[in-house]
Amino acid sequence: MQNVRPLPQYLVGRYHGWKATSYAENSAWYRRLAEDGQRPRAMVISCCDSRVHVTSIFGADSGEFFIHRNIANLVPPYAPDGLQHGTSAAVEYAVTALHVAHLIVVGHTSCGGVAGCHAMCSGRAPELEEKSSFVGRWMDILRPGYERVKDLPEDQQVGALEREAVMVSIENLMTFPFVKTAVESGELSLHGIVHDIKNGTLMQAEDGGRRWAEI
Amino acid sequence: MQNVRPLPQYLVGRYHGWKATSYAENSAWYRRLAEDGQRPRAMVISCCDSRVHVTSIFGADSGEFFIHRNIANLVPPYAPDGLQHGTSAAVEYAVTALHVAHLIVVGHTSCGGVAGCHAMCSGRAPELEEKSSFVGRWMDILRPGYERVKDLPEDQQVGALEREAVMVSIENLMTFPFVKTAVESGELSLHGIVHDIKNGTLMQAEDGGRRWAEI
Amino acid sequence: MQNVRPLPQYLVGRYHGWKATSYAENSAWYRRLAEDGQRPRAMVISCCDSRVHVTSIFGADSGEFFIHRNIANLVPPYAPDGLQHGTSAAVEYAVTALHVAHLIVVGHTSCGGVAGCHAMCSGRAPELEEKSSFVGRWMDILRPGYERVKDLPEDQQVGALEREAVMVSIENLMTFPFVKTAVESGELSLHGIVHDIKNGTLMQAEDGGRRWAEI
Amino acid sequence: MQNVRPLPQYLVGRYHGWKATSYAENSAWYRRLAEDGQRPRAMVISCCDSRVHVTSIFGADSGEFFIHRNIANLVPPYAPDGLQHGTSAAVEYAVTALHVAHLIVVGHTSCGGVAGCHAMCSGRAPELEEKSSFVGRWMDILRPGYERVKDLPEDQQVGALEREAVMVSIENLMTFPFVKTAVESGELSLHGIVHDIKNGTLMQAEDGGRRWAEI
Repeated sequence: MQNVRPLPQYLVGRYHGWKATSYAENSAWYRRLAEDGQRPRAMVISCCDSRVHVTSIFGADSGEFFIHRNIANLVPPYAPDGLQHGTSAAVEYAVTALHVAHLIVVGHTSCGGVAGCHAMCSGRAPELEEKSSFVGRWMDILRPGYERVKDLPEDQQVGALEREAVMVSIENLMTFPFVKTAVESGELSLHGIVHDIKNGTLMQAEDGGRRWAEI
Repeated sequence: MQNVRPLPQYLVGRYHGWKATSYAENSAWYRRLAEDGQRPRAMVISCCDSRVHVTSIFGADSGEFFIHRNIANLVPPYAPDGLQHGTSAAVEYAVTALHVAHLIVVGHTSCGGVAGCHAMCSGRAPELEEKSSFVGRWMDILRPGYERVKDLPEDQQVGALEREAVMVSIENLMTFPFVKTAVESGELSLHGIVHDIKNGTLMQAEDGGRRWAEI
Repeated sequence: MQNVRPLPQYLVGRYHGWKATSYAENSAWYRRLAEDGQRPRAMVISCCDSRVHVTSIFGADSGEFFIHRNIANLVPPYAPDGLQHGTSAAVEYAVTALHVAHLIVVGHTSCGGVAGCHAMCSGRAPELEEKSSFVGRWMDILRPGYERVKDLPEDQQVGALEREAVMVSIENLMTFPFVKTAVESGELSLHGIVHDIKNGTLMQAEDGGRRWAEI
Repeated sequence: MQNVRPLPQYLVGRYHGWKATSYAENSAWYRRLAEDGQRPRAMVISCCDSRVHVTSIFGADSGEFFIHRNIANLVPPYAPDGLQHGTSAAVEYAVTALHVAHLIVVGHTSCGGVAGCHAMCSGRAPELEEKSSFVGRWMDILRPGYERVKDLPEDQQVGALEREAVMVSIENLMTFPFVKTAVESGELSLHGIVHDIKNGTLMQAEDGGRRWAEI
């Protein structure tokens, strides 16, 4: 592994600044988090996108959110087939080991993954149809959402598909037996929101996702 | 989907606070990010753990890091089998679509996933061996790392395995043709660090992971 | 005093959010509260416990409740001995200076202080018997309550003692001459409730505390 | 105890509203808080004053802050004399049982307790000097602070004494062996702020309380 390189110096500098300030001010808390373990209140599933950092939006500090981030904040359906499912593993750990009280799926506008899915499903991105396209195969999860938006006016489809990325994920979450049980017993609540990057607004799923209202 | 619930009020309040301050002060930047798209300099692969938020440690603002988070910051080997690989999709998108310049794998101490892997590989967690265990199957990725630490003194194994979670991921990254090409052409550099939650320190892989030094 | 440290940054951020929203929207009211002084309608005595915030439960905004919080929401008997009595000072100020109309004692389930008192009185917590134990000496106030519950079935005692923490406090309140006078003249009314953290219910003392009914 | 009265109806109504909304949205969290116990990150010592609710200012929800409130946010010096010390009991429980990481003393402007102390110490409130005055005896804790401000210009004394109420408390906190040990070992950090009710600003003690700066 000759390929591991030293961290870029600008990040080293910022890290030293963080350690001398934020870490120093909170060292007692970090020590306790290390010794007692984490006990986050919520799991957040959001996109890898560099423009959506939920800790900022919600003023959440270390220890509050267990965060899984993948392309387009998707959760696949339950499939206990012995294969590697990173998202399912994260959900399983959060719900069965950490017993989070809330599971919040956070979508966003201008999502590259969703746009790619829309292009693929509408026949404009054959390269994503290929077996070897990891992004394409991942976005297959959102195909049921495309079916629900494809008859909308053209200029509304991508926005609707961004909301479907949240709703499909919540539907799939309910196919996991441990999620379903926890939701039905009142130990876990599911939430779906979409963040508008440009305006900074949050839209919230209401009435089972049939309506979306600004918070 | 009667299961979607309104966002807890304390998060709504904090969000409104964020919108009136951080968002308002940076609305020009957010607007540009929305209109021009993201152009992150680095991809970070880190753990879902609520105690490790790299945006804080590195003072990173919106637009800087494309972040994938999964259990134990693992990357599986390249496998273009047409199945759903969320981590591989994120890496593919970051390298081939976003052309990030750095790919940083961030491990951490007190990692529940790594501890589970160690228990599983040493025969003390049969439940993780089951086909239906998403966490167990996901942690299979780290089995090669366990082979390299299992002969160390008992009390050093978990710590060493936390570092292996970084090194195995970097090794696996190099099995992706598009990563290998980008690294070899100098368009992409790989970095591996481990964050000590208690002390706030960062350790960096040197000499191909044979040594780890505090930054 | 080299020991004073800057406020953790996450609290600073949230405070700025509050100031830009809640404060800004209510600045006229805050200004009037500052200039005219407070004129709260009720005093609440509740526990320090992080799970019981009466302003939330009762939708109370700034200026409504004068709130004293101590371990197990206890009021000691009247003792004008010239020593420092923080709870008695708070009651005196609320009743004689602020002329509150209601004095509400709010107990709660899963109270660590009450559980400690029960352990101490039943001989299972010798460390709380020590002179130097502030928690032990404070919980001495509740000993008369223990006497009234100690013959109940074992599994009912702690719950009954949580209700006694409210009733003993109300009894002790009536030993303060200024409370007794205000109650008897109709200027002040006393109320006792217990909040069930898990179910969110409120139980109310009726018939002098002989019965408790869900509100 | 014929003196226990039903809760005023306006509070019953608001409580029912809270239970149907905030409680319902967060019932999973409340259940977990009840079953797992509280694990607050910080203890806050603030005034009973109805105009200062720190959960609002800091966007803190159930489970975050262990809150003791007394007149003028005072902590007496360590005195293990076997008498009842409600504030010392609360500090003991927070530091030794809950292991909070931060202890934040929050003073405020227009504090009636501080104003009374100033009047008493400057000879203008003989009634507070009486042995039977609970408020007077409680405010004795702040006498060392008065000594430090009494030579300031008259119109600056009360404001300075409000800040002294924070600093004297922090000094007294350090006389508790378990606080001193926790601070010196890095397990606990102390913070002092003053909230300006009128302007909504927070001032923070710097340089050991010699300077106060707006956050």
